[in-house]
Amino acid sequence: MPELRRDPVVGRWVIISTERSRRPSDFASAPVHPKGTGPCVFCPGQESRTPEEVLAVREPAGPPNGPGWAVRVVPNKFPALRIEGDLEPAGEGVYDRMNGIGAHEVIIETPDHGASLAGLPETQVVAVLETWRRRMVDLQKDARFEYVSVFKNHGEAAGASLEHPHSQLIATPIVPMMVEQELQGALRYFRMKKRCIWCDIIRQEMHSNARGRGRLILGEGGFVALCPYAPRFPFETWILPEGHRSSYEDAEGVDFGALARLLGEVLRRMNQVLGDPAWNLSLHSAPMKIPALDHFHWHLEIIPKLTKVAGFEWGTGFFINPTPPETAARYLRAGLPTGTTDRDLS
Amino acid sequence: MPELRRDPVVGRWVIISTERSRRPSDFASAPVHPKGTGPCVFCPGQESRTPEEVLAVREPAGPPNGPGWAVRVVPNKFPALRIEGDLEPAGEGVYDRMNGIGAHEVIIETPDHGASLAGLPETQVVAVLETWRRRMVDLQKDARFEYVSVFKNHGEAAGASLEHPHSQLIATPIVPMMVEQELQGALRYFRMKKRCIWCDIIRQEMHSNARGRGRLILGEGGFVALCPYAPRFPFETWILPEGHRSSYEDAEGVDFGALARLLGEVLRRMNQVLGDPAWNLSLHSAPMKIPALDHFHWHLEIIPKLTKVAGFEWGTGFFINPTPPETAARYLRAGLPTGTTDRDLS
Repeated sequence: MPELRRDPVVGRWVIISTERSRRPSDFASAPVHPKGTGPCVFCPGQESRTPEEVLAVREPAGPPNGPGWAVRVVPNKFPALRIEGDLEPAGEGVYDRMNGIGAHEVIIETPDHGASLAGLPETQVVAVLETWRRRMVDLQKDARFEYVSVFKNHGEAAGASLEHPHSQLIATPIVPMMVEQELQGALRYFRMKKRCIWCDIIRQEMHSNARGRGRLILGEGGFVALCPYAPRFPFETWILPEGHRSSYEDAEGVDFGALARLLGEVLRRMNQVLGDPAWNLSLHSAPMKIPALDHFHWHLEIIPKLTKVAGFEWGTGFFINPTPPETAARYLRAGLPTGTTDRDLS
Repeated sequence: MPELRRDPVVGRWVIISTERSRRPSDFASAPVHPKGTGPCVFCPGQESRTPEEVLAVREPAGPPNGPGWAVRVVPNKFPALRIEGDLEPAGEGVYDRMNGIGAHEVIIETPDHGASLAGLPETQVVAVLETWRRRMVDLQKDARFEYVSVFKNHGEAAGASLEHPHSQLIATPIVPMMVEQELQGALRYFRMKKRCIWCDIIRQEMHSNARGRGRLILGEGGFVALCPYAPRFPFETWILPEGHRSSYEDAEGVDFGALARLLGEVLRRMNQVLGDPAWNLSLHSAPMKIPALDHFHWHLEIIPKLTKVAGFEWGTGFFINPTPPETAARYLRAGLPTGTTDRDLS
């Protein structure tokens, strides 16, 4: 049984995963997935090689666990957390733990093994975005879970162990530390100003861009993409709804087509500018089960994997970013290919 | 001029480095340092190829910036921060910034290019540990700096760009976020319990080990090495003084020989168990210029680089660790080579 454990100093919870337990010799011989030869476990026709699906988009409707799907959600075969059981929170001296209960699912984004999110048609990306939402809504019903983290690793350098386009979600009984920090910071701001900090950021960025030196990349149907003011990583990019909205699941009046177009365009420009980099994407939404929040604003964070994180960053949480976000945004606005000089962008 | 910028939501400061500024095309062609052919810039006889030394251990004494040194400290040739100038903190709407002022130094740990910290004689490691302390004490005198981060990247996978054994330090006008979080968490604990949390952790770990299922690795002359209860990474290891002490610089009555022996032994066992892994080391000490703290306890954190950090971790701050620290400590206590089975350790 995996365990959730709390660091007694900073209060950060970690997952001690036993299903994926690794002894010293396992690190040297990390599994290498052969590429391109024959269908993979996520390919159509291979449905029996995954755990039974929890959701699939099939039009026309068909029997589960067979081909004919556009998007398919299955439990992760090597889950970080276990779905069955009770939390049984317990203390042991200065330490706190609970059973590693949670959901760990894989969202197979397309039947096409060789496709990529950047290249999928808009309707297919909409189906993926809708699937994230439907799974979040469904997992909210489980009284044990406080948060659903949706994320995607694209490319081996970003931690993807399978090529076939897929995203993942992990539902946890704990609100993750980074979301907790965002909630606290945003609440402090709201108490002072009576405004959402992300709404203020969007307003300020729009104003700055109008003056020609901003970090805004582009907007589309009620969504904006921008490089944040103090990014940890070069070319880090956020996508946010322009209007205030705390929960991704709250889709009333949201134009998922516009979000799909904007996300696709940002990824295509990253590919042009950075030459098909590996990247990580994560969705930050308000914790489930609480009513809409005035101080939280959901957003996507996309981090291209360009630099190595080393001892200074791991030890201090202080990041050195070699690319000012204004420079990154200028490139991503232009979408110019690798090798373009600054002069070309004047 | 580099900049320090604050994320307006979570309050994390980042360094936007301009000396190391990188445009898109620079990421693809990261510099590769040729290995082994001729002396490197950190080798004896090459002193003129580095900026002028700020400190060197020379016995017998000799002129600066020539050979004959045991340990040598030089400014980083490509510093993340600039030493000259004023902070000039400024606001811009929701954002806060200041000039990227700080010290970025390299501690060359030995004249021997092919050596490694794990293999250096005790006296040489003591000289390195003392040099860290001397630089911290000296940098405290600069009114602009609040914190000195000492860290080391060992191996290319851990971010080391030069082979020759060296550690680094970065002095900043900001206390790094992770240290700030440790200070806050530890103060909360102290206010409740009137005890240092790390003192309590050490006590509890010693008691647990006596019962045969602990995370303690070994102790030496007033220092202990242990795998923390809720580690982010497999085989993460902390080294702490057994008695309470908040500042590394406060060396009165501290046996640096014992610390050197313990650090060396931990690194050698990691090499045995994990087959010469890359690793990061960082020193966590109380911020400079404040008197000794009852609630903070300095420590070294060592993180072998064994797993990839992916979207879930970057997006949430939630870490999945595939190796329980009890397992890691059992291996590190035994120091058995890679490939040993669990059965051998029963």
